Amino acid sequence: MNTFISTGQPAARPRVLIIGCGFGGLAATRALAGAPVDITVIDRSNHHLFQPLLYQVATAGLSAPSIAAPIRHMLRGQRNVTVLMVEVCGIDRQQGRVQLSDGQSLGYDYLIVAAGATHSYFGRDEWAAHAPGLKTLQDAFALRARVLKAFEQAESSPDPAQQRACLSFVVIGAGPTGVEMAGTLAEIARHTLKNEFRRIDPASARVLLLEGSPRVLQALPPELSAKAEAQLRALGVEVRTGCRVVGIDAGGVEVQTGEGAVAATERIAARTVVWAAGVAASPLGRMLDVPLDRAGRVVVDGRLNIPGHPEVFVIGDLAATQSRQSDGRTLKPVPGVSPAAKQMGAYAAAQILQSLHPLQAPQAQVLPPLPADAPGAFRYRDYGALATIGRKAAVADLGFLQFSGYFAWLFWLFVHIYFLIGFRNRLVVLMDWAWAYWSFQRYARVVAEPVDPAPSASPSIKP
Amino acid sequence: MNTFISTGQPAARPRVLIIGCGFGGLAATRALAGAPVDITVIDRSNHHLFQPLLYQVATAGLSAPSIAAPIRHMLRGQRNVTVLMVEVCGIDRQQGRVQLSDGQSLGYDYLIVAAGATHSYFGRDEWAAHAPGLKTLQDAFALRARVLKAFEQAESSPDPAQQRACLSFVVIGAGPTGVEMAGTLAEIARHTLKNEFRRIDPASARVLLLEGSPRVLQALPPELSAKAEAQLRALGVEVRTGCRVVGIDAGGVEVQTGEGAVAATERIAARTVVWAAGVAASPLGRMLDVPLDRAGRVVVDGRLNIPGHPEVFVIGDLAATQSRQSDGRTLKPVPGVSPAAKQMGAYAAAQILQSLHPLQAPQAQVLPPLPADAPGAFRYRDYGALATIGRKAAVADLGFLQFSGYFAWLFWLFVHIYFLIGFRNRLVVLMDWAWAYWSFQRYARVVAEPVDPAPSASPSIKP
Repeated sequence: MNTFISTGQPAARPRVLIIGCGFGGLAATRALAGAPVDITVIDRSNHHLFQPLLYQVATAGLSAPSIAAPIRHMLRGQRNVTVLMVEVCGIDRQQGRVQLSDGQSLGYDYLIVAAGATHSYFGRDEWAAHAPGLKTLQDAFALRARVLKAFEQAESSPDPAQQRACLSFVVIGAGPTGVEMAGTLAEIARHTLKNEFRRIDPASARVLLLEGSPRVLQALPPELSAKAEAQLRALGVEVRTGCRVVGIDAGGVEVQTGEGAVAATERIAARTVVWAAGVAASPLGRMLDVPLDRAGRVVVDGRLNIPGHPEVFVIGDLAATQSRQSDGRTLKPVPGVSPAAKQMGAYAAAQILQSLHPLQAPQAQVLPPLPADAPGAFRYRDYGALATIGRKAAVADLGFLQFSGYFAWLFWLFVHIYFLIGFRNRLVVLMDWAWAYWSFQRYARVVAEPVDPAPSASPSIKP
Repeated sequence: MNTFISTGQPAARPRVLIIGCGFGGLAATRALAGAPVDITVIDRSNHHLFQPLLYQVATAGLSAPSIAAPIRHMLRGQRNVTVLMVEVCGIDRQQGRVQLSDGQSLGYDYLIVAAGATHSYFGRDEWAAHAPGLKTLQDAFALRARVLKAFEQAESSPDPAQQRACLSFVVIGAGPTGVEMAGTLAEIARHTLKNEFRRIDPASARVLLLEGSPRVLQALPPELSAKAEAQLRALGVEVRTGCRVVGIDAGGVEVQTGEGAVAATERIAARTVVWAAGVAASPLGRMLDVPLDRAGRVVVDGRLNIPGHPEVFVIGDLAATQSRQSDGRTLKPVPGVSPAAKQMGAYAAAQILQSLHPLQAPQAQVLPPLPADAPGAFRYRDYGALATIGRKAAVADLGFLQFSGYFAWLFWLFVHIYFLIGFRNRLVVLMDWAWAYWSFQRYARVVAEPVDPAPSASPSIKP
């Protein structure tokens, strides 16, 4: 039985349904503050996550609450918003209705789908068990446990080969997340764990960063890629570009280098493998039953609408669209980054506000698709790219200015603190970083789960 | 195959094996700093946990790393200690050897068993699934998720009966943990969640504290129990003493009040039930194959030894022993509290140090059991009891002085900050509390797991 949830408001106010409260969904919700609409925000998590710092939770530098805030707390002052922690299991765009996992359904006049992205293993889903990715807090906790337990197992294992495998960390994919993970893992091995082990030397750990393309941080100019690679090597990371992963199992990674006659396959024994290579759009996009691109993203027009539905917007990592460049003419795909998601959210909200004046039933509008290069189409403003590599090392590309090293790191720090959610979180994260900077320590080195059950435990002996 | 782990030191130094790094194990390890022994500390967790504040993690007031520190980090400066994160699966006290879950075994000359306690459901283990207890970080996270999700489900549910059940919280057992949990839950409902919901009023939540005995905080004098109960009621907690729980299931709790002819059974519908009633010793005690008391604790003599084994000590919550009172004559059972565990740890370490001078093979000693009232037997120094009830309310019993209210709360705060592990944690917890105090907010309101899979989800609809 599907029960219709009354919003408890006069039906005259248009109902805006926002699926997902990441950067895009949150920006759209906030842009509709004070508007004469009834907004329902749906998310399957109870928190908005500051994903750019998720790798810090995975590497024990920050605690989860520092980068995650309860959605309903962030939106408590916005009286036209109802927040529901539920999952969407179907979208009926003809009826204007969304089916929820608890058996209820919700009607809408406007729909903004901002469900984000997940990992993609390029069709090799069996790799997921051995090479976890990093998109949610659960992922971060699982990865933190893996990394810390690998050092623990190396200390307790009597077998040198197993010790070496425990002390080998492979990061696949040298985008910003992969570079940050690899740099931080090297820092943990060289500095954080110093003097804490008796049978192993954590500094002897290998950290490998594997990348299929010819350079790290592809999105940045080649000079910055080179600088980032040099900084990674200085930290002790083995960087391997142009190297294709062809297999992952519980024991390690199989890589192929070269092509054709010079192709060679190598096996790297490693207990901990991190997947930072592929991103795919949320499976929620399929529920819209419209054309998707190769990465599963929903193809939207210049107004961020799906074909024939001016009341349905898809934004953020889930949307595939193009944007005019600063020259005003050439089109370039909008990248899957948080500034783009925020800008799309604000744009979709503005479109909704516009259609409210004069008040008209949105379904009655018959708008042709808006080309991405038409006036009024969504335009992504690119303020540049930033990636940190480790302590005191980062690269920055602001378009008009490129720089790297200590100053870039300070800049990265400032930007991330600035965009963090909430005054309190900013202060806490700043304190945690100051602490980490001076003490070389990472304070969140806590694994909630106890030791893994032994696969081959001997029966217990008793006197 | 059992591999013997070499400690990498000349065999002449006696090997001390410490199982469990709670308050007792940690105190024993630290008391042996600098001693000519090789210590191995075994724990199945990677962290020492400050259990008195665990309820703050469960109620989203603190993040886990604030009250948990990596054991090997705490002990990194003590060069005679090796830390292993493994589980014990057998103890052979004749051979002086401990079997580990990873198939290895460890020999010892001295053994300190400090494995602590777990929940006891008084033989009703089926209650565990519906009424989780609070002993580990995992427990705290699970409880935090339950509490926060209950409010979420109340907001999204269209059924008033279900909403009421979601907004009913039952805490079973009015010891310090139960009182702290109930007080904090009431505070969350009345203050923290204010203005954050649109369809429910979180302040309408019921918090029930059930206790079988006639008063709360049994360990304190009756006047303080009465004050604590009054403070709980002022916070909005329904306190029910003399009420026996006879059933717990997914829908709530069944309680019996009165005896014989006036006995009555009542059902309380509640989605969230917290178990703070029963404590049982760790099952590890059984591996020693010696007499246990009714709660599963190992009965030790005045030297904290098991019968016939002066080289084996059992300390902390796992040990059952008595101690002379301040009058020096009457014996009283040593309570299962952290000061007792610390004192036992220091005592066991002192016994080991004593037996090293003159150097003698400890197994060769033939010592008769030491009565608990003999000179030199372990003596528990009781510095008093403290319990907090919520914001600005607590009760304190220092023996010579009893007080309650705001000043007791400040005292509680000071004591807990003082005994917290590590300078950094003290500072962070103090900051978190200052924040909570002024803002009424609890910053760790994060649930890592997304929404529960719906038990009866309709098949997804698609256009």
